[in-house]
Amino acid sequence: MTAPLPISSVAQDGFTVSTRNRGFTEITREVVEAVGSSQVQTGIANVFTTHTSCSLLLGENADPAVRGDLERWFARAVPDGDPIFRHDAEGPDDMPAHIRSVLTGVSLSVPVREGRLQLGTWQGIYLWEHRRVPHQRKVIVTVLGAAGE
Amino acid sequence: MTAPLPISSVAQDGFTVSTRNRGFTEITREVVEAVGSSQVQTGIANVFTTHTSCSLLLGENADPAVRGDLERWFARAVPDGDPIFRHDAEGPDDMPAHIRSVLTGVSLSVPVREGRLQLGTWQGIYLWEHRRVPHQRKVIVTVLGAAGE
Amino acid sequence: MTAPLPISSVAQDGFTVSTRNRGFTEITREVVEAVGSSQVQTGIANVFTTHTSCSLLLGENADPAVRGDLERWFARAVPDGDPIFRHDAEGPDDMPAHIRSVLTGVSLSVPVREGRLQLGTWQGIYLWEHRRVPHQRKVIVTVLGAAGE
Repeated sequence: MTAPLPISSVAQDGFTVSTRNRGFTEITREVVEAVGSSQVQTGIANVFTTHTSCSLLLGENADPAVRGDLERWFARAVPDGDPIFRHDAEGPDDMPAHIRSVLTGVSLSVPVREGRLQLGTWQGIYLWEHRRVPHQRKVIVTVLGAAGE
Repeated sequence: MTAPLPISSVAQDGFTVSTRNRGFTEITREVVEAVGSSQVQTGIANVFTTHTSCSLLLGENADPAVRGDLERWFARAVPDGDPIFRHDAEGPDDMPAHIRSVLTGVSLSVPVREGRLQLGTWQGIYLWEHRRVPHQRKVIVTVLGAAGE
Repeated sequence: MTAPLPISSVAQDGFTVSTRNRGFTEITREVVEAVGSSQVQTGIANVFTTHTSCSLLLGENADPAVRGDLERWFARAVPDGDPIFRHDAEGPDDMPAHIRSVLTGVSLSVPVREGRLQLGTWQGIYLWEHRRVPHQRKVIVTVLGAAGE
């Protein structure tokens, strides 16, 4: 246990991810930079995306086959064009995108220590686009904690 | 990036949602009000429900058909009365309610900026009741951050 | 609503869970102790695990049958050895472990009030191992909030 520290800092940053199709864009570097700029040494970084048809993933970053397998599993579990869906005005991938977003989440909180995001060795942060058309996705990073040691 | 701000405030509020059956109750207004009362300008609002058979959803708020489709997908993926379930003392919807709660989550963290919850245009916050009988569901909102500009 | 309080404390703690096989290890006591040591009275406790093949669960703590049913449902929804998976270097449970981790999450935020974790009566915190071989799983608890009343 660290000795309790006075909290002294909150910082917030935002950026946009341009997506082209269903799939993953790694944003670990952008989040690491926001944490570095925040001057927070010990605390929490929250990553949030303001949409309901993409999500944020803390996923395996070594073997790209993992992300291909994730796509295949979700494509089977939540099929595009499933006849049970009535909300299809934007196309057969619209409602599946909402369900994938609900199942995988749009908000992640990660601990910060010694000014660095405490990700595990194999953890990367990804924006996961669930629509089949390009989108601009807004991501907000909020860092809260103690600025000094 | 905002300039790092001194953190100066934490506030906590709670309310109860009376549910009647499986389905969604929008609680965006209650959370917005808790953030407004908190005096936090920049920070994070955490929304939490203290139960294991309902959940919190950040979902599409425009077309009610989305919520109907969510119900239909989950009803098929986690069927009531599935014979693989042994925990059925409270009825055929009891264990499915626990699984839906695990898949969709009971804790949401959303950024706050300029004193306002940074939800996207189409994001609403819902309490999702997964049981088929009425319940009183407790929700706690905790807001942490910098009180001043 | 509590009157807004000055934030004054952040504390961080970590521990390791030794797992033996797929299944649940309750860690509620360890998290409660980290909150107690933090001196935070009002705020948030974040629990995080630095891995991509286990997860954290806020689950029903009374009837062990619930956890057995969770296992059975996930074993059917994400079958070991599914031929759609290409990432299988570590065995037939490797890719299912990643998908279960994505579906159930590695980060939990829980409110703290009067120095205590605000879990519901039936909520327990569990580390859920998704691999079929023993692992050392690192858990980090970060507590942010107001130290005084």
